[in-house]
Amino acid sequence: MTQREITFRLAARNDLPSIVRMLADDDLGNERERHEEPIPESYYSAFELINHDSNHELVVAELNGEVIGTLHLMFLPSISFQGGLRAQIESVRIDRRFQGQGIGSEMMQWTMERAKKRGAHLVQLTAHKSRADAHRFYEKLGFKGSHLGMKLTLE
Amino acid sequence: MTQREITFRLAARNDLPSIVRMLADDDLGNERERHEEPIPESYYSAFELINHDSNHELVVAELNGEVIGTLHLMFLPSISFQGGLRAQIESVRIDRRFQGQGIGSEMMQWTMERAKKRGAHLVQLTAHKSRADAHRFYEKLGFKGSHLGMKLTLE
Repeated sequence: MTQREITFRLAARNDLPSIVRMLADDDLGNERERHEEPIPESYYSAFELINHDSNHELVVAELNGEVIGTLHLMFLPSISFQGGLRAQIESVRIDRRFQGQGIGSEMMQWTMERAKKRGAHLVQLTAHKSRADAHRFYEKLGFKGSHLGMKLTLE
Repeated sequence: MTQREITFRLAARNDLPSIVRMLADDDLGNERERHEEPIPESYYSAFELINHDSNHELVVAELNGEVIGTLHLMFLPSISFQGGLRAQIESVRIDRRFQGQGIGSEMMQWTMERAKKRGAHLVQLTAHKSRADAHRFYEKLGFKGSHLGMKLTLE
């Protein structure tokens, strides 16, 4: 019996190429990311902003020393809900080779526990309307699709 | 002819009672806010967090010296989109007495211009599925309802 050794931790700078590879590796991501070697400097600049802001946590899942999952957890102070702290999750990815094994679910559970400990009363996220499998995945975790997520590109 | 004098600016601490009154004054808000005098201290604590974080801007619309609109603009550093900065808007409200006069639209335009100047490539928001009028309002401004917004309450 193979022992699966998965750990979840905050990302380090040298995890970025693996993270970008996963972000680029899907239908929506491959149009907007640039996964090349070395990855563009703009990814590192963004990492530094995230890494120096205690409201942002870039999370990775590591399997036997290899980074195979990622998400971006953010804490949003808010006036609404009586000044309640919200958590938001963006850019959730599991390496294509390891999908469907429950790793994404474990990573989300780990992250939601972390958000709860920090005092967040709510976790929110959006998923593209076309991603029915993602909707089912989040519903199983207890999320309710109560909102319409709207976006506008600034030019 | 009456001259309408609307200004948009960042909120000050003493604008909070007006802001909370607007947040509480709708079907969804009145279950989760507490608009009383004085407003609960938790609102002030949240304001201080927002006010001391350069990624957060609490905006108000002022008409002839009275606060009649609000929204919360936030800037989110992100790895995705090649490390692009996102803007997000939450808690948009116009005082019931002044709705339907284009003030919300002006407030949004002012805010999107601000997000653009800061270098955000995208503005995102969510609106409850039941708020068809809000969907039309944001669509007129150029937003596309491409995503499902999902939430989970942490207990």
